[in-house]
Formats: sequence, structure tokens, C-alpha cells
Amino acid sequence: MAETLTNAEIAGIIIECLPYIKRFVGKTVVVKYGGNAMINEELKQQVMEDMVLLNLIGIKVVLVHGGGPEITNLMDKLGKKPEFVDGLRVTDRETVDIVEMVLAGRVNKSLVKFLDVKGGKAIGLSGVDGKLIEAKAKDTRLGYVGEITKVNIQPVSDLLDRGYIPVISTIACDEDGNTYNINGDTAAAHIAGALGAERLLMMTDIEGVLRNKDDPSTIIKEMTVEEAGKLRESGVISGGMIPKVECCVNAINYGVKNVVIMDGRIPHSILIELLTNEGAGTMFRGSENA
Amino acid sequence: MAETLTNAEIAGIIIECLPYIKRFVGKTVVVKYGGNAMINEELKQQVMEDMVLLNLIGIKVVLVHGGGPEITNLMDKLGKKPEFVDGLRVTDRETVDIVEMVLAGRVNKSLVKFLDVKGGKAIGLSGVDGKLIEAKAKDTRLGYVGEITKVNIQPVSDLLDRGYIPVISTIACDEDGNTYNINGDTAAAHIAGALGAERLLMMTDIEGVLRNKDDPSTIIKEMTVEEAGKLRESGVISGGMIPKVECCVNAINYGVKNVVIMDGRIPHSILIELLTNEGAGTMFRGSENA
Amino acid sequence: MAETLTNAEIAGIIIECLPYIKRFVGKTVVVKYGGNAMINEELKQQVMEDMVLLNLIGIKVVLVHGGGPEITNLMDKLGKKPEFVDGLRVTDRETVDIVEMVLAGRVNKSLVKFLDVKGGKAIGLSGVDGKLIEAKAKDTRLGYVGEITKVNIQPVSDLLDRGYIPVISTIACDEDGNTYNINGDTAAAHIAGALGAERLLMMTDIEGVLRNKDDPSTIIKEMTVEEAGKLRESGVISGGMIPKVECCVNAINYGVKNVVIMDGRIPHSILIELLTNEGAGTMFRGSENA
Amino acid sequence: MAETLTNAEIAGIIIECLPYIKRFVGKTVVVKYGGNAMINEELKQQVMEDMVLLNLIGIKVVLVHGGGPEITNLMDKLGKKPEFVDGLRVTDRETVDIVEMVLAGRVNKSLVKFLDVKGGKAIGLSGVDGKLIEAKAKDTRLGYVGEITKVNIQPVSDLLDRGYIPVISTIACDEDGNTYNINGDTAAAHIAGALGAERLLMMTDIEGVLRNKDDPSTIIKEMTVEEAGKLRESGVISGGMIPKVECCVNAINYGVKNVVIMDGRIPHSILIELLTNEGAGTMFRGSENA
Amino acid sequence: MAETLTNAEIAGIIIECLPYIKRFVGKTVVVKYGGNAMINEELKQQVMEDMVLLNLIGIKVVLVHGGGPEITNLMDKLGKKPEFVDGLRVTDRETVDIVEMVLAGRVNKSLVKFLDVKGGKAIGLSGVDGKLIEAKAKDTRLGYVGEITKVNIQPVSDLLDRGYIPVISTIACDEDGNTYNINGDTAAAHIAGALGAERLLMMTDIEGVLRNKDDPSTIIKEMTVEEAGKLRESGVISGGMIPKVECCVNAINYGVKNVVIMDGRIPHSILIELLTNEGAGTMFRGSENA
Amino acid sequence: MAETLTNAEIAGIIIECLPYIKRFVGKTVVVKYGGNAMINEELKQQVMEDMVLLNLIGIKVVLVHGGGPEITNLMDKLGKKPEFVDGLRVTDRETVDIVEMVLAGRVNKSLVKFLDVKGGKAIGLSGVDGKLIEAKAKDTRLGYVGEITKVNIQPVSDLLDRGYIPVISTIACDEDGNTYNINGDTAAAHIAGALGAERLLMMTDIEGVLRNKDDPSTIIKEMTVEEAGKLRESGVISGGMIPKVECCVNAINYGVKNVVIMDGRIPHSILIELLTNEGAGTMFRGSENA
Repeated sequence: MAETLTNAEIAGIIIECLPYIKRFVGKTVVVKYGGNAMINEELKQQVMEDMVLLNLIGIKVVLVHGGGPEITNLMDKLGKKPEFVDGLRVTDRETVDIVEMVLAGRVNKSLVKFLDVKGGKAIGLSGVDGKLIEAKAKDTRLGYVGEITKVNIQPVSDLLDRGYIPVISTIACDEDGNTYNINGDTAAAHIAGALGAERLLMMTDIEGVLRNKDDPSTIIKEMTVEEAGKLRESGVISGGMIPKVECCVNAINYGVKNVVIMDGRIPHSILIELLTNEGAGTMFRGSENA
Repeated sequence: MAETLTNAEIAGIIIECLPYIKRFVGKTVVVKYGGNAMINEELKQQVMEDMVLLNLIGIKVVLVHGGGPEITNLMDKLGKKPEFVDGLRVTDRETVDIVEMVLAGRVNKSLVKFLDVKGGKAIGLSGVDGKLIEAKAKDTRLGYVGEITKVNIQPVSDLLDRGYIPVISTIACDEDGNTYNINGDTAAAHIAGALGAERLLMMTDIEGVLRNKDDPSTIIKEMTVEEAGKLRESGVISGGMIPKVECCVNAINYGVKNVVIMDGRIPHSILIELLTNEGAGTMFRGSENA
Repeated sequence: MAETLTNAEIAGIIIECLPYIKRFVGKTVVVKYGGNAMINEELKQQVMEDMVLLNLIGIKVVLVHGGGPEITNLMDKLGKKPEFVDGLRVTDRETVDIVEMVLAGRVNKSLVKFLDVKGGKAIGLSGVDGKLIEAKAKDTRLGYVGEITKVNIQPVSDLLDRGYIPVISTIACDEDGNTYNINGDTAAAHIAGALGAERLLMMTDIEGVLRNKDDPSTIIKEMTVEEAGKLRESGVISGGMIPKVECCVNAINYGVKNVVIMDGRIPHSILIELLTNEGAGTMFRGSENA
Repeated sequence: MAETLTNAEIAGIIIECLPYIKRFVGKTVVVKYGGNAMINEELKQQVMEDMVLLNLIGIKVVLVHGGGPEITNLMDKLGKKPEFVDGLRVTDRETVDIVEMVLAGRVNKSLVKFLDVKGGKAIGLSGVDGKLIEAKAKDTRLGYVGEITKVNIQPVSDLLDRGYIPVISTIACDEDGNTYNINGDTAAAHIAGALGAERLLMMTDIEGVLRNKDDPSTIIKEMTVEEAGKLRESGVISGGMIPKVECCVNAINYGVKNVVIMDGRIPHSILIELLTNEGAGTMFRGSENA
Repeated sequence: MAETLTNAEIAGIIIECLPYIKRFVGKTVVVKYGGNAMINEELKQQVMEDMVLLNLIGIKVVLVHGGGPEITNLMDKLGKKPEFVDGLRVTDRETVDIVEMVLAGRVNKSLVKFLDVKGGKAIGLSGVDGKLIEAKAKDTRLGYVGEITKVNIQPVSDLLDRGYIPVISTIACDEDGNTYNINGDTAAAHIAGALGAERLLMMTDIEGVLRNKDDPSTIIKEMTVEEAGKLRESGVISGGMIPKVECCVNAINYGVKNVVIMDGRIPHSILIELLTNEGAGTMFRGSENA
Repeated sequence: MAETLTNAEIAGIIIECLPYIKRFVGKTVVVKYGGNAMINEELKQQVMEDMVLLNLIGIKVVLVHGGGPEITNLMDKLGKKPEFVDGLRVTDRETVDIVEMVLAGRVNKSLVKFLDVKGGKAIGLSGVDGKLIEAKAKDTRLGYVGEITKVNIQPVSDLLDRGYIPVISTIACDEDGNTYNINGDTAAAHIAGALGAERLLMMTDIEGVLRNKDDPSTIIKEMTVEEAGKLRESGVISGGMIPKVECCVNAINYGVKNVVIMDGRIPHSILIELLTNEGAGTMFRGSENA
């Protein structure tokens, strides 16, 4: 137990991080926050501590978040019923207004406050601020479900330059001032790419990519984008894992160095992933740095 | 009618603004946005145009807003009934959550989008971002009604330095991560003071301070803080005008050069106030520059 | 009449300029000053007001001038007779000394003072200062009539960077310290090109390029450099218009985005040209942005 | 004879300058140019070489000039007769126009070209540019003879910061755009004071202040402002020397460290004064650094 | 044992450092290196790791060192016998040459290489470089034993600004180019004071200041400069501890916030002192922040 | 004799330097210091004066030095005998330790102090500081004789940017913290190349490259790298001159503009070489600027 460690042992542990810190100081790390780590209070506290610590020691961190249960929650309270067109859920004007309130208002400010309390210097942005994310309707029948058309990364860079932790809610706008709901993973991939991030951490509720999906011990620790393609063809990557992996591959194509499908259920998974010799999931990389 | 003006006449009108532009270029102007100008669609469009134009020509503009009717609206929809203690309305946790969603989510992002559409470069902040506004409970019986304890103006200065229009929703936080609802006029006075603003424009639905409150022609165009004190003693300033004027006087004491109680019902009142020889309300100034 | 406009109408007119201001803020506009606008006292005042206003709102303006009548005037007073060689006027040493005194001394300082009085921050330069314009004799028989060999734009950029309005008299020097008289339009085209100006305004005493030179209603509002070539071949552009148009086409080839042959007899023609939906003459542009 | 020196001797001479260069590098030296050094072609060349060399090795040099004989010369040519009021010469409008042309046009540009030819980077300014020198009429009966009311040193500092040698002609303007003729020594004292110059060199056609005005060997090498006062009381400083010395004393009061009445008839007197162990005239200093 | 810790436990330990890192990031910490930590190979490695880690995470660290045994060692090899005057050891010219070689050559470069190998960016300086430490003879009979007369901190600040770890050997120079041997503790106190350091760590081979010098459990964890004075008067601080404590008190008077007499025999004592909740010795502070 | 020169003659001599100063101001000059100029006290003083003067007038100067006789001297004192392998001298660990002490300690600090005394602002570096020179063993049998593998010029550029004169001792390090002795000429060539120096001056005890090595009048004043190749083939360059010339040719290939084999026995040879019309040796240049 850590409780019984001597100070010298503690110092020894810290010093083990030296090569990892050296690698990331001055670089940008984008965290796509979601899943259990966003619901479980203790995990949430730990994510915030990890972000503040990384920011303090000179790593540029960005938190990208969705809002999951809170949106459904408010929709229920407001008696708003989901609508469907050809079996697909529609985001009408009223719904996107709720999404905007929950994401940019409730969830975003709540995360900013968590970071504040841990001693961080955070500023919340939405895709609407400084036209960070521009979008158009993906399918007009689905209403305000957006497809990203442009990322104006300047506001995020400006905040990173001044030492802030940008906390970004994934809505977007178009030229007429409409708001769109955007897929969080996709937005994170675009933002990390536009920043030329060293690493994008996709927090999930799974161990990573498994060869045998029922056996955590078959986790694939690292793969190139080419290998990802082959694993998909061979059926190892299947089902809900397909869009997740696609998003990781896209991020690398947009300019991110490494992307990790990370198990957010592990306490301090971000620190473990970045500052220890074990990763916390499956890491994707381009083929040129194989 | 402006329609029939020749180009030369148009140019002549623009050139009349020269001395006013000269006065404000490079200076900071804070607009406390509210009242009819926030409800009436046409006035709203004009406020946004005015802000973008001033920002473009090199005046540092900040928009501070509350949310009035939209909060009540959402509370009604959610079936939330107002509570009272000793006749005073209570802001419980659930209410302050609604306030946060509406102000920092719905209203703030809506204003940012309006400015975007008009060609502006705006970023929304709440008092929670970068710990901009710190507060404590004003009266514990009233719940999350906050009294400002500290303003950390750096995030606003940082955005102004990079050329953005900061749009600020007036909620605040404390060290434990609680959110408080803050009086918008008070917040605007504190922010303008911390910025050493050249001018704070308080948008209202009245003509300004009137000697005879039933006769708009008795408007007092300008007064010092001393004169304001005397007018209050003599009863000219009374009723709902008292806290408004107090707030103006406070703003000057916090470091603002001039404060204007401005009639926001007039189209383009901001431009008129700043760029023409007629003001649009009652201007307060310190006594030393009498 | 502008006199009777309401403040709201005034504001409405100003707000119409928004898209035009947006286009030019931070960009460079070079004005080749001459003709009636330099002789008529009222027009002169208006040109100065226009320059100061544009400078104030963040547009980088440069004034390039010749000296026309004042040179002849001083030559007459000094009893200096024009000489000719093969029918061409000769600029001997004594004449170029007079030109230098009038342009760099009398006219340049007079314009700087006009801008000062209007509230501008102007500094006068000649082509000799900082070796701004280097030249050689065009034809040795004609004496000190110069052909530009090099433009060292640094002094102009330095002044623009510090917020000044550079006012440039079009003389030039060679390596031996001789002064040359330079054609003003040519100098303006070179300077605007070296600055990569957004627009060069050639102030003239004509409406612009007319299809039928006796009918102002046949003005050609805009043409590409290719179209200019064709119009010359077809004879629409002829006589004294040929060198003027050539100079505009050259300016575009040197790097200016758009050049306008502008009617300087119209009051506030510069503001009208830049900040309203009507131009004030004929605009030339490269073919790629057709 | 220098011709026969070995390279080692040359190097030895250069190295002797080391402590003097050390003293002046990064500091400002203002030269009031006039007298023989401005008329004699060889001396003029040497002054220009000295200025360029000092500028190159990192000393901030400013050249302030009048125009003496050239003004009279042009007035004669134009048949302009001097007018007098109560025995004092009047500068009417026509005369000040001539002064402006000669100083800001002819003489200023000629000096700029001389510096150009020697390899310098010079820019000419008049007191009118950037409102460098503001003035009012000294005595309304005398017309446009000006008394300095304000010095706006920014344009000169801006040019020095960018590495230019500012060459300043001593005319001035008022708020209405009138030009005034200004005493060159007075202008130089004001400019050097506003720059906090390390040294102001007043080029004259005398050896310096002599105890016995007929005996150059009685030159006073150095004096404090107090000593200057006493020497005037005792009559050693008398006649035309009085205003000269007054001007030096004023310069020190305006903020110059040392002022030298320098014998401009000596070849390379500026270099000798600054870079060798012998001065070239009489140096004035404040009493505190006695 | 740390070996058996889970990753989560490791992360937990790192996160405990958050408040300490927050306190020191961007601040300056000066380490006076000496004693066992400089002789024992393992301790030396740890000191170097600690320095590199602190530098990496944004703390400005400076290493000040003496040379102890290596000087004696070389003197022995060279057959140099210590001389004495009135019982005091003399540093003659030959000795100070040896000191210089060992400190600025051997020891300094060895430490720089150690930091290099650990991944640091270190540059060695002596008190002679950039005239960092100026001194005079303390007592002419003792030869080149120096007393500090001036500290020119600019070279150290310049290196810190560019992200280097300055490694400083404690010799000094005078205006005639003589080298002096300087007491290392005194030099460290002066340097830390000139830098306005947040903390000065004096590495020693003792536990700290003990109330009962034979009982380590009586260590005094913290004291003000006033308390230090009283403890000396009462005899608790005595013998060899007196100059050590005096030096700590001086450092605080020179401008250091806190000084620690630290037990350098503990592994990673620097990290423990700065990043954990236990100090590693006795901390001195000024009375005003008691 | 210079003693009897008039001030005007002195000034005349200084002014002759103008074109040379113009050429080198703002450029970098690297001096490889060695030979007689390092042994003879008077020559040494003159080299230091030359360096300080050049630095003062804005030329970026770097001094690279070896240590010759002082190393042998200390080895003798320590009774260290040279070892040989196959007739080649071996640098064992003990020897490289001595080299380090002498070069980085004794010689380097002595030169820094000389520059200090002359009024310069110098900082000593070794190839170990900031990993300036990385090396590997040239031949493992020879021990710590190094071959340069990498130059990290940043520390030198950083010091030049802040106005210091970097004084560099030519030892190097490898990744394991070993020190290597490096050939001084080779190191100077690499450093000058990495700095893109305008000129590298190789101080030697010969006149330069002679056609007839017994006749100084046959000196070759200038040659291209091609000509150097031909002269070597033809046997004009032979013996000990071959590696010297090779080093010059390499320096040009690394990016130096001109390299001079300079006669360091001439007083103030550096100033003569740079600031007069006569060089002081043989200058090498690339073929493209033939």
C-alpha cells in the first residue's frame, strides 16, 4: 500500500516519470472525455487532477466532452419525446436547444469548476465560440445533426498559449447561426488533428481492442493504421468497434501523432497512459513511424 | 430618409464620427446588455452590428448579459415553483442549475452566434471560466444568490488582446465549485472597473435619469458622482432608480471613466452614444474630471 | 439633407459600412493624390479627413503626391524658362532643385500639416529618404528625368507599422546623390506594388474609363488586365488614357490587388470608393480573381 | 603622415578608441549642424562620414540643421526684401514659405542624400512631421518667428529604434497648420533634451569659450552650469556668446548629459570629440556630476 | 516496496505532488550542493535526476557547488603544501590556480555532464563568467581568499530564461583579473538572493538544527530569523552551526523566501523537500511571513 | 609614429574603416585562437582588445581556443608520461581529465578574465556545456581522442543574442558522459559552420600559404576551394599545411563564407584582417562567389 511508502520510495516513483515527462512537455495532448469516467464521481475527480497536473508541468492539455445522460435527463424532465425518420433519431430545433444548454451550459461549466477546484486555470468553449467548429446538416431529414465542414483552431491555440486548459463542448454552428449536435469522437479527432497533437486519448469503457473480445488478456497494445485496416477486414475489429477505430485512424490522418483507445474505468488512467511504462489501452500510430 | 442620400452625404455623415472614433480607438467599452434590446429581434440585431463595427475599428468591446425571461421560461417548463423565505425569493440548487444552463448555455451561445453571423469574432465566457467572478452567498437563507468577492480579469484581457469580443454571462463560483446567480449590473460594474474601461453602457428601458420622472424632456444629460448623491438626497433619484444609480457610481469608484444609463430601446443606441454628438441617456462621471 | 437626419438614421448609415470596413481593416490602401482634389481647398480638406478616418479605424493608408502647378509657379517667379531638346522638355539641374524644394519642402509639408490639423499622425518622406526610390536618367538628353530602378519599401513599412500616415513626394535619387523628377503615377504604382496593397486609388479629374468618352453614363465599372488590353486594341482606351491605364495594369503586375481610376472631383471620393456599395470610377483587377 | 603608417599602427590607433566607443554605444548623440562645416564641401563630406560611422557602430545619432545662406540666396533670387518692425526683422507668410522649402526641401534632402552616398540609412524630418515641434508666434509683430511650446519626440525615437539617422530641419507648426521658423540651436537643445541624449554637439566656427577671446590657448575645456553662470556675471562670457551658452545650459536642464560648443572647422571634429582623448571645444555639464 | 505497486498507486502518489508543484512552477530554487551527496555516487545520480525533473516541469533550478576533496587531492598530487599565517590557511597564487582548475574545470564540467546524461540542458558558469561574482581579498595576509563585493546576476537570469540549468562554481574575480576562492555557502546565499529565489536548499551532512545535538528527534522543523537569533543567544545554535545559520539568515535578508538546511544524505532529498508534505531539514523564513 | 599624429589624422584613419565595419556589423566572426598570440603576453592583450572592440561595435565574435603548452606543463608536474600505441599518442582517462581541467578551467577562465578586464562581456563554454560538441572515440586504441559527431550550436547563439562573447574550449562529450579531447581547428570549423559565420580566422604562426615556402613574398592572398585542391595536387600545399588547408576547405563546406589562415604574430592581426584594406594571411572562399 502507498500509505506505508517512505519518502525516498515516493521520490523514486516520481523520478521514474522523468523520461515520459521529457517526451510530453511542451506538446499537446487532447482528451476525449466520456463514459464511466464522466459518471463515476471518484473517476471524475481523478481525471480533473490528472489534467491539472499535466497542465502545471507544461503539457498542453485540452478536454473535449459530450454530455450523454444529462441530455436525456433534461429531455425527460421537459417531456420531450424522441422522434424518428426511417428509424433514425431526429434532432429538431427544440432538441438542439436542449443539447446546447446542457453541453455548453451545464456540463461544460461543471467541468470548468471541477478543474478550478483542483487548482487548474480552465476556460470553457463550445464549437460556436470563435466559430471553432463549423458544420452543415448531415442529412436534412435528421434536422440539426451536424457534419463538420471546418475547424478554426485559433481560439484553442490562443488559450493554450496563455496557459489555460480549454474545455470544449461538441456543438457546432453554420453561417446562419444554427447550432448542430456533433459526434464527440469526431470533433475530438478534428480538434486534435488541427492542433497537431502528440496524443489523443479516447476515454472509453472497454480495455482497448481485443483479439478475442471476451478475453481482456488478448488486448492489442499498439497497431499502425495499416494493421487497423487488416484487422477490420479479418473481422477482429467489428460491430461498435468499427466507428471507434475509424475515428482513431482519421485522427492520425488529420495530423495527430498517436491515438489511444483508453480504458477510462481505471483510476488515473490519463497519468498511467502518459507517465508510466504501461499504456492503458490500444495505441494507434501512422505507418511511417512504425 | 437615408435611402435617398447621395454618396457624398453618406461620406459626410461618416466623417462626422472622426472625433468620436479618435476618442475611443484602443480604449475599452463595456456594454451591460438587457431589457427590450435583448427581447426585440430588430434591436438585438442592431446591438450585434454595433458591437462588431466598434470591434472592427479598434475599440475593445465587452458584452455582459443576464438572461431574464428565458430563465423564467425554462423554470415554468420544468414545473419549478419559486420559493420564498421571509418574502424573499430563494435560489436553490436546482434553480441555480437552470440559471447556469440558460445563461452560460442558451443565451451566451446565442449571442456569440449572433455576433458570428454579423462577422464578429466572439468568445463566450461565464463568471466560472478562469474563475472570472468569485462570489459567496449573500444571505444563506436565499441559497445561491451571490455577492462578488473577487474579479480575476485576466481571461477577459487575454481575449481582448487577441481581438475577440468577450461575451460574459453573469454567474459566479466559489472555491468549492458552487455556482451563484449574480446581479448583472453589479457584475458589469466590477468587470468594467477591473478593465479600467473608458465607458460602461447600461442598457435600460428608460430615457435616463429624469428630473420629473413623467417628463422625458427633463432628462439630466450628465452628472458627477457628487451630484448623484445630492439628487438622491433631494429625492429626484428614487425608487428603482436608486440601485441603478448606485451601481453607476460604484463603477466609477472601481475605475471606469464614464458610465451611461442608456435607453436601449433606441435603434443603434450604442453607436449613437459613442459616435455622435448626442448621447443616449444620462452620463455619470467622477468629480475630478468635472 | 443630412442635416435633418435622426441619430438612428445616422447610425444606420454608419452600420452600412460594416462589410467594407471588414474588408480593408489591417490592409494597405495607397492614394495617388492629384488633380482638382489637390487644388480645390474644400476637396483637399475632405481628402485629408478621409485619410485620417481610414487610418484611425485601422486601415494602413499612404498618400503619394506630385506638385503640378506649384512647380510651374516657382519656376515662373524665378524667371526659369523651360528648355527643349527635340521637342521634349529638359529637366536641368536648376529645375530639379526647384522640383525638390517644391515637392519635398512646400507641398509635402503642407499636406503633412493638413493631416495634423485633422488629427492624423503623418510623416512626410521623399523618394530620397532611406533611398526609398532609386532611379537613373531616362534619356540623358532630358537631364534629371528619372526612371525607377529600385524601390526600398522598408521606410514606408516601418512608418505604417508604427501607425503613421506616410506622405510621399515623388522624387528619386541615384548612387551619386543626384535627384530625379519621377512620374507620380508610376511611383505610386511601384510603391503600392512593393507594399502588396489591397487597393491603389488614382485620383483624376475624369469619371473613369468611358466606352464613349463623351458620355459619362458609359463608364466601365470594372475590368481585368486582359480586358484592358482588348479595349486598348479596339481603340476604346486611347489618347491620354493609354498611359494611365498602362500604369494601372503595371501596378497589378507589381502586386496590387485592385487599382481604381477614381474621380477625385467628387467630395469624399476616397470614403465613397472604399466604404460604400458604389465605387467612384473604374476598377482594374488581375484575371485570376475574375 | 597617416599614409606611411603600418597596419599595426593603424590598428593601435583604432584600439585607442575602445573606451570612448564603450561609453557611447547604445547612447544618443545629437549634432547641431551649421557654420563652416555646412558650407565647406570637404568638411561637409567629413561630417557625413562621421555620422555614418557612429551610426554603424551602434551610437544613435541625430542631425539637426538650419539653412543659413541658402534661404537668403533664394529670397534674393525671388526679389524678396527683408521687412522690419521696430528694427526687428519680420518673417511674413511668403518668407516662411521660402524657409520651409529651403530647409525641409532643399537642405534636408541634400543632407539625406549625402548620408545615403556615404552608406548611411537616413530619413529627413521637419518639425512639422508627426508634430515633432509645436510652436506659437514669439512676437506677433514679427510674424512667423516661432517659440517652441511642445516637442513630440516619438517620431525621432521611432526612427532611431529602427536604425535610421534622423535628419531634422528646424521649422515648427501650430494647431492651425501654420509654419514657424525656429532657432536651430534652441530646437537642437529641446530635441536632445527630450531624447535624454548623452551628448549634444553644437557645431560652430569658434574654438569654444575662451577666457581671453583673442587667445585660443585660453580655451576653457569644461565647465558646470554654475560656472557658466559665474563666467557670465564676470563678463568672460559676453556678446554673441551669451545666447550660445544659455542654449547649452538649457539643454542640460532639459535632460542632456553633456553639451559641447565645438569647433566645426576642424576636420572630423565629431569623431575627435567623441572617440579621442581630446575634446574639440568647451564641454558643459550639470553640477551634480561635477 | 515500490516494485509491487500497481499503476493506480503510482498515479496516486504522483497526484499527491500537485499542490507542491503548483507552488514552485515558474519560481526559482537554488541548490547549494556539497557534502556526502557530492561524494556518494548514488546520491549524486539522484541529485542530478532531481534537478532535471524539476527543470523539466518548469521550476527554475540553479546548482551552486564547491569542490572539497578534489582540490586537496590535486594539491597533494602536485606536492603543494598548505601554508599558514597566524594559524590561518593561505591561498597563494598557485593554490588559487589549482582551485580554479578543479572547480571551474573538473568539477563543474563533470556535473554538467551528469545533468546532460540524465537528459538535462545544463551550462556551467564560474563566478568569473560575465563577472558574475566580483570580490576583493578578505585579508591580504591570506592571499586569494575572497569577500564578495558585487553579484552581476544577469548571466544566470539569461540562462534560466532560455531554459538551461546553470551550474555555478564559486570562484570570483576582481577588476584586475585576479581569481579568488569564495566560500560556497556565502556565494549561494548571494546568488539566491539576487535571483529572488523562492527557496535555497543548503545540502549538508546533518539532519538540520537540533535542540539537542545528539538527538535527531529534536529537530526544529522551521524557524524565523528572529527565532534563529534567540536560539543562538541561548546556545542551542553553537559551534559549526553558527556560520551555517548565519548564512541562511543572510540569504533571507538578501531576498530569498525560504532557506533550508537540508540533510543531503537522504536519497532524493531535493524532491522530498520540494514535492512532499515532509521537509528534509530545518527551514528558515523571514518574520513577516510568520 | 602614431604618437605624433594629429587628431585629424587619427580621425582620418578611423574613417577609413567605414566600409569594413559596414560589411561585418551584425555578422558573426569566429576566431580560432592559438600559437604565439596565446603565449606572448602583449599579443594576447591585443587579441583581447580586438575582440572587445569588435563586440562593442556590433560584430558577433566567438573565441575558440585550445591549450597547448599548459596541458603539457601540468602533465609534467603530475609526473604523467605520454603513452603510445603503434607510435600514436594515447589519451587515457587520467590525461583527458587533465586536459579538461586545463582547457575548461585554467585557460578558459583566464581568457574570460582577460576580456573582462578589457571591458568585454564574456562567458566561457566548453564543448560539454549544453552538449555543444558531441563526439565519439576516433580510434579506440587512442582512448579519449574524439571525432565530432554533432554540434548543438544553440548555447552559442543564445549567448551571442544576449551580447556576450562566447569563449569556447574544445573538449567534447558523448552520451555516456565521457569527455574527449578534440582538435581545435576542427572544432572551430564546425562551430563557425553551424553559426553560418561571415569569417573564420585561424590564428597561426605562419604568414599564410606561400608558393615558395621559404619566401614570404610569395604568399597567396586568396584562393577558392577548387584552387586549394589544385595547389595540393601540384604539391604547393604540402606537409603540415595539408591538414590546415583541409580544415579551411571543410569550414567553407560547413557554411562559413570566408576562412583566413592568419599570421597571429602580427600585433592586432584581427583588426588588421577585418578593418583594413590589407588582409593578414591567406583567405579561402567557395567557388560560387569567385
